[in-house]
Amino acid sequence: MNLQFFMPTRIIMGEDCILKNADALYKLGKKALIVTGSKSAKINGSFSDVTNTLDVNGQEYAVFDKVMANPTIDCVYEGAAYAKKENADFIIAIGGGSPMDAAKAIALLACQDIPRENLFSGEYEAKVLPMAFIPTTAGTGSEVTQYSILTNDAARTKTTLAAPFLFPDVSFLDSKYMEALSKVTTINTAIDALSHSVESFLSVRSNTLTEVLALESIGIIVKQLENLKNFTLTREDRSQLLYASTLGGMVIAHTGTTAVHSMGYSLTYFKAIDHGRANGLLLTEFMKLVEKLRPDKIKTLLVKMGYTSLLELESIIFELLGDTESITVEELESYSDIAIKAKNIPNGIVAPTREELLNIYRAVFKV
Amino acid sequence: MNLQFFMPTRIIMGEDCILKNADALYKLGKKALIVTGSKSAKINGSFSDVTNTLDVNGQEYAVFDKVMANPTIDCVYEGAAYAKKENADFIIAIGGGSPMDAAKAIALLACQDIPRENLFSGEYEAKVLPMAFIPTTAGTGSEVTQYSILTNDAARTKTTLAAPFLFPDVSFLDSKYMEALSKVTTINTAIDALSHSVESFLSVRSNTLTEVLALESIGIIVKQLENLKNFTLTREDRSQLLYASTLGGMVIAHTGTTAVHSMGYSLTYFKAIDHGRANGLLLTEFMKLVEKLRPDKIKTLLVKMGYTSLLELESIIFELLGDTESITVEELESYSDIAIKAKNIPNGIVAPTREELLNIYRAVFKV
Repeated sequence: MNLQFFMPTRIIMGEDCILKNADALYKLGKKALIVTGSKSAKINGSFSDVTNTLDVNGQEYAVFDKVMANPTIDCVYEGAAYAKKENADFIIAIGGGSPMDAAKAIALLACQDIPRENLFSGEYEAKVLPMAFIPTTAGTGSEVTQYSILTNDAARTKTTLAAPFLFPDVSFLDSKYMEALSKVTTINTAIDALSHSVESFLSVRSNTLTEVLALESIGIIVKQLENLKNFTLTREDRSQLLYASTLGGMVIAHTGTTAVHSMGYSLTYFKAIDHGRANGLLLTEFMKLVEKLRPDKIKTLLVKMGYTSLLELESIIFELLGDTESITVEELESYSDIAIKAKNIPNGIVAPTREELLNIYRAVFKV
Repeated sequence: MNLQFFMPTRIIMGEDCILKNADALYKLGKKALIVTGSKSAKINGSFSDVTNTLDVNGQEYAVFDKVMANPTIDCVYEGAAYAKKENADFIIAIGGGSPMDAAKAIALLACQDIPRENLFSGEYEAKVLPMAFIPTTAGTGSEVTQYSILTNDAARTKTTLAAPFLFPDVSFLDSKYMEALSKVTTINTAIDALSHSVESFLSVRSNTLTEVLALESIGIIVKQLENLKNFTLTREDRSQLLYASTLGGMVIAHTGTTAVHSMGYSLTYFKAIDHGRANGLLLTEFMKLVEKLRPDKIKTLLVKMGYTSLLELESIIFELLGDTESITVEELESYSDIAIKAKNIPNGIVAPTREELLNIYRAVFKV
C-alpha cells in the first residue's frame, strides 16, 4: 500500500465558530489584512463576525475587498502591495473560491518579491503570512488546499499556483453564512464540490484514505440533490454541504483534479460560465468515458450514490443546471487545444485524447 | 454540525518509503537524535534504513537506544540531556509506542527546561525539536498523535503529556518492519489499534469525520482477525494493519480514549500486562456497558464488523488473547479506585461509575 497524506489546516466547524474560537485568530498576528470580495461577506454576517472577533482580541485590521470572480494576477499583486503598506502580519480570507485563492497568493507575495513571470514556477522560499480562511460558499474547498487558482491571461486559462506551505493555518466553517446564497450559486457550488470528490476518486493519485473521504463527500452531496432542486435547505443541510465540500477540498489537495477541470477552465475563461457549473456540465460525460476503461471505479461511485447508471446522475445534474449555453464547434475545437495541454489531463485514471475532449464538449453542448 | 479536525503530521506510507523520501528527513535538521529501544530497530531493518538515508543526506546523528517498554520520566529526561549534549537539532523515533512516546517528551525537553513537577501541566512554550517517526509495530498510532504517555510512579499509573505541537512533522509507514514481530506482539498491537478506533467512536468528542475514519479502521482490523489467529499475514495484510492503526491514532488524536484505557493502565502498571492486551481484555465488557445506554452506537460498530452481537467479537478477541491472568478482587478494587480518577472516564459516551469499573474488571478476570 502506497499512501501520502498531508492536511495541516486546523478545521473548526460549527455555528458561531469564529466568535467561539477567538484565540485561533489571536495567535496568528497583530494586524490582519482581510481579503474579500466587494459585497457578500458584509451581507452574510461573516465580515462582522471577523471584525467583532478581532476587536475583542485587540487585533488591528485593514480590508482589501477588491477580489473579483476568477481573480487576476494584477489583483493579487495589488493585494500584496496593500498588505505590505498596511504592515499586515496575517491574512484573513472571507468568501468563495475567488477571495480564498487570491488570499493565498497575497499571503505569499506579501512576504517575498516574486516577479510575475515566476509566479507559477514554484521557485520561492517557504515563507508566507499566516492565514485564516472563512468560506462563504460550499463548493471550492480552497479552505483546506494548497492551491491558488488565478486567471492567467498569458495562457488564456486559469493556472494553479501550488505549494505545501499555502495551506491555511485555520479554517472556520459556519454554514449560516451560506443562507443568503441564491439557488443558482448554491447549486453551482454544490456541484463543484461533487466534481472535486468524483475527480479525486478518478485520479491516478487517489489512495485508500482519499477514497474514503471522497466517497463520504459524494454520498452526502447526492443525498442533498433533491433538496437543492426544491431549494428547501435547512441549516443542517447547508452544514452537510459545507462539510462535504471541505472533504472535497481535502481530497483534491492530495490528488488534484482531472480533465473535467481542464475543460471547464475554458468555459469560464471564454464564456464566463461559472466554475462549478462548468464542471457539472462536463462531469458525467467524462465519467462515461472513464466507465469504458474502468467500470469498477464508476460502479463504486454509483453504489455510493445509490444510482444504477450514470444516466441517473446526469439527469439530476442537468435538471439542476438547466439549459446549456450555445457554443460553436470551432470554439470547442480551440478549447480542446488548450485543455489537452493541462497537467490535469494525465492526472485522471483515464487521460482523454484531444479528440475525446472534443467529443465530451460536443456531447455536452449538442453540436 | 460541530467538528474540529487537526492532523498536521505528513504521512508517507509505502515500501522503502524512508529511502525514497530522503528529502523529508533532510529538511528537518543537521543532526538527528535517533530515539529507539535497545534491539528491535536494528533487527527489523528500520535503523539501517534511517542511518543509510541520513548518510546519503550528509546528516549527522547520535543514538539514544535506552527506551524501555512503558518509558519512565527518568528515561525522557536522560534522553533530552543527551540530545542537548550531542547538539541534536531534530529527533527520529523508531519503534513501537514506547520509543515514539518517549521521543515526543525528549523533543520537548531538549528545547526548554521543564521541572519534573510541571511535566504534565501543559505549561510550557510551543517549542519542540522537529520530529520524524517510524513505527515498527502496528498498534499505538503514536506516529500521528500529540500524546506522550509516560509511566508516572507518583500517580502509580501512566499519564499523558499532550500538546498540539507534539505531533510529529512526518511519519514513515513501512510494513516490512513488522514482519519480524512475534505472533503475540502482532496480536496485541492489532487489538490495541482496534481498541483505539472503537474507543474513539464511543467518545463524547467523536465527530462525523473521526467516525468515518474510525469505522474504516475497525473494518480493516476485523477483516484481519482470522489472519491474526492463523498468523498467516502477507506484507499487504501487515500494511492493512499498519494503515488501520494509523487511522486509529488519527482519531484518538481528536477524541482521546475512554475507560478501557484508564482501566488498562493499572493492568500494565501493576501486572506488567502488555498495553494492547490490557485494552483487548477490557474492550468488549466496556462495549456491553455502552450497549445498554447507547445500543445505536454499538449497532453501527457491529454492522461495520459484520457481527450480529458483541459476543462474536468477544469470542474472537479472547481466542486471540488466550487465558486471562489471575488477579484478586482486592487488587481489582484498588485498580478501580485509580481508574475512576482518570480523565478518560468521562470522555466516553457512557462514563462508568467506580462500581461499574469493578464489575468490568471482575467479569474479565472471572473473580
